[in-house]
Amino acid sequence: MRRAVIATPNTAPLLPKLAGIVGPKNVVTDAADMQPHLVEWRGLYQGRAQCVVKPGSTAEVAAVLKLATETGTPVVAQGGNTGAVGGQTPDDSGRAIILSLQRLNRIREVDAAGSVLVAEAGVTLQQVQAAAAGVDRLFPLSLASEGSCTIGGTLATNAGGTAVVVYGNMRDLTFGIEVVLADGRVWNGLSKLRKDNTGYDLRNLFIGSEGTLGVITAASLRLFPRPCAQATAFVAVPDPEAALALLSRAQGEAGGQVTTFELICRLGLDMVLAHVPGTRDPLGEVSPWYVLLEIGGRDEAALGAGLEAMLAAAFEAGEATDAAIATSLAQRQLLWKIREDLPLAQGGEGGSIKHDISVPVSSIPAFMAEATAMLAARFPGCRPCPFGHMGDGNLHFNVSQPVGMDKRTFLALYGEMNLAVYEVVARYGGSIAAEHGVGQMKRDVLPRFKDPVAMDLMRMLKSGLDPLGILNPGKVL
Amino acid sequence: MRRAVIATPNTAPLLPKLAGIVGPKNVVTDAADMQPHLVEWRGLYQGRAQCVVKPGSTAEVAAVLKLATETGTPVVAQGGNTGAVGGQTPDDSGRAIILSLQRLNRIREVDAAGSVLVAEAGVTLQQVQAAAAGVDRLFPLSLASEGSCTIGGTLATNAGGTAVVVYGNMRDLTFGIEVVLADGRVWNGLSKLRKDNTGYDLRNLFIGSEGTLGVITAASLRLFPRPCAQATAFVAVPDPEAALALLSRAQGEAGGQVTTFELICRLGLDMVLAHVPGTRDPLGEVSPWYVLLEIGGRDEAALGAGLEAMLAAAFEAGEATDAAIATSLAQRQLLWKIREDLPLAQGGEGGSIKHDISVPVSSIPAFMAEATAMLAARFPGCRPCPFGHMGDGNLHFNVSQPVGMDKRTFLALYGEMNLAVYEVVARYGGSIAAEHGVGQMKRDVLPRFKDPVAMDLMRMLKSGLDPLGILNPGKVL
Repeated sequence: MRRAVIATPNTAPLLPKLAGIVGPKNVVTDAADMQPHLVEWRGLYQGRAQCVVKPGSTAEVAAVLKLATETGTPVVAQGGNTGAVGGQTPDDSGRAIILSLQRLNRIREVDAAGSVLVAEAGVTLQQVQAAAAGVDRLFPLSLASEGSCTIGGTLATNAGGTAVVVYGNMRDLTFGIEVVLADGRVWNGLSKLRKDNTGYDLRNLFIGSEGTLGVITAASLRLFPRPCAQATAFVAVPDPEAALALLSRAQGEAGGQVTTFELICRLGLDMVLAHVPGTRDPLGEVSPWYVLLEIGGRDEAALGAGLEAMLAAAFEAGEATDAAIATSLAQRQLLWKIREDLPLAQGGEGGSIKHDISVPVSSIPAFMAEATAMLAARFPGCRPCPFGHMGDGNLHFNVSQPVGMDKRTFLALYGEMNLAVYEVVARYGGSIAAEHGVGQMKRDVLPRFKDPVAMDLMRMLKSGLDPLGILNPGKVL
Repeated sequence: MRRAVIATPNTAPLLPKLAGIVGPKNVVTDAADMQPHLVEWRGLYQGRAQCVVKPGSTAEVAAVLKLATETGTPVVAQGGNTGAVGGQTPDDSGRAIILSLQRLNRIREVDAAGSVLVAEAGVTLQQVQAAAAGVDRLFPLSLASEGSCTIGGTLATNAGGTAVVVYGNMRDLTFGIEVVLADGRVWNGLSKLRKDNTGYDLRNLFIGSEGTLGVITAASLRLFPRPCAQATAFVAVPDPEAALALLSRAQGEAGGQVTTFELICRLGLDMVLAHVPGTRDPLGEVSPWYVLLEIGGRDEAALGAGLEAMLAAAFEAGEATDAAIATSLAQRQLLWKIREDLPLAQGGEGGSIKHDISVPVSSIPAFMAEATAMLAARFPGCRPCPFGHMGDGNLHFNVSQPVGMDKRTFLALYGEMNLAVYEVVARYGGSIAAEHGVGQMKRDVLPRFKDPVAMDLMRMLKSGLDPLGILNPGKVL
């Protein structure tokens, strides 16, 4: 008996056709030039591809997808390649083409009076922030990778970040999108409307679908008045319960909008102090927990007074034990540095197993107690280092390796510990993918924690919108 | 050749089966008892049905839908029967059953610390507002029909109202929903999470789908801190451009959140003064336009001072010519009465042709100028009386009949005038159904104004989720 020979698909005809659409120099096949697109930024995921295609317009994206449908070619859309779950990395079959949207980099319109900005998928988040600031408006999404992540990627993953507590996720910041479907048809949904009830909500179907239902090529984004004044405090709190009470108090009484409410554990602060040059403990005494709190508004003096009065009441109530209020931009940046460099500092302590999870805000204290006790019992010596966006119930419940353990030995526990933590998350009605998405990292574990009817609905949507399964195959589902 | 005889489906077995599910007294077939469910509140739509079924639990809704799928029975979900586009009224075939959700009337949970409330579909909006207020929280959706409209209906139509400018539509106020699918499966999506990126956004697919994709049986709703203080002003503005500038100024500088920004034309005020007892002109001099402006916050004195300073600057800039600031709750209610009774007052002037439209906020002045000129040219003597939610770009661009014209003669122009106005709306990238939905009223006109790819996507979703077409047939699509 002879074994069947599986023929490698003849891709020769595809590349010239792609070159005919986007121009030869925008079809990258050189191994060295392709490499940055094939490997995920942390090196966690690595794939192969026929080429990287760089269309320069929506029409070119449409032609590429039409061709992909005709030839059954998998398409992996890619923005700034900053995703955290491997959604932007092809599999290792080598069949896919990477559709880089970085040349779609125009800001098409800035409408200050209407508080709308229309940007193409390849514009970076920072460029959008700057364009908004240029007309005295705020685009509030803020992420560690904002200098390189793109609008297309933030939409594909419904990105979150540090300002969600008041402004919401990318979904909430988007009026409309332009989408190329799997077969190359273009849905022009670039609405600038705050209210539109003419049928089903197509916009939110594509936002957060990680390139598996269509390719977002542009978006009309919502701008806000700029909070000209900020009051920032680093607050010592005795426990997560107190942090929760402080959150409620701040949202009710701070005399402005709570734009940041980040929880930080003492271990996290210790790691920052140990590994990040130029940092120091903002407070005199050691506290088990801290909150980075920022209030935004228009009047600096009023904000500052409101913050001080609110904190005084919090001290009275036992919700806070100490606080440092930034009195200069430099001090503010120092406080923010603690939060921003925390993931980096964690790297200095060896291996870290990460959990981007959320639970209902009011369940955070109970969840953390239960998850921490479970970890101590099942993974002796491991060091939970939870921090993150407590205001949205979203914690980066990361776990550093025991001191002295071999890093690889610890990281070998990755899947087992993830499952153990996710099981606690599920008991609190939480999410195992709060802001980074599913990608390939959580695809296989998702059905264990997601409602089976929801999984069925997702599969129905996938097969309806991408019947050939060419859009970012192997991601999400 | 003989003509085929289409048999009337034998419905006799259906009613006992329904009675077996919900109990005999919850299957209403008496004509008089059914009548309130068969006629739309204004009498614009009237239909027929086999019965009104009143399930008392999600499980009963599921069993009814399973039976409907097995028997191919159309199902029209109905809440408070306050919809404005006939979405809640069956057609006149008599084949449908009306699925009244009013017995699903429990508030399942109020979580003040987590700012979440879980309510079943039949709970009225006012009951939710009251339950939130009972724990010192705000549920901000506010509508004229809030005493009788239900949570299920507000979700089905993605309801808006007067507080959207800061809090958003129903969609924005919902963490999660529980949905019964056409075949009776239940998706438990009652999340209480602010952030959840585990796959496609199913929640927003059902919200706003007007009962055509599934039946929403419960929702977890987002609560907010209560703005204990309000500052309310009735501001005379020279023209819509000035109103737009005032909006921008108020959102940037008012020292609080702009929770209401309603535009009112002089004709509208005149109608209220003529037809609503107990009203009076809040200002001494006549102005062509007015804005009802409300700012919310915590500190009454600070809010009032901020509002006065902002208005003083607006006078300087020519954006406002006069203003009355409410100094008591009674005065505030008097100002609100002008806005709330405006639709009623319009009824006193004879026939009125209504347009629930939106355009980008910054296009409102140009849109109104063009639409008004078009009406004067094509429908001489008609009296445009635009008012509404300028802060969201959503106007009730209603048109009263010429003085002295026969009401029916004027109302015979309904479809023609709608089309003429919608064509102007379309030129500004607007929506012909901003907050009331499509229902049966706008179903046939929708494809003329909606992107054809979007229409295709909607049909795909409909056939995927409701392959037999039993869910609210003839609505939206």
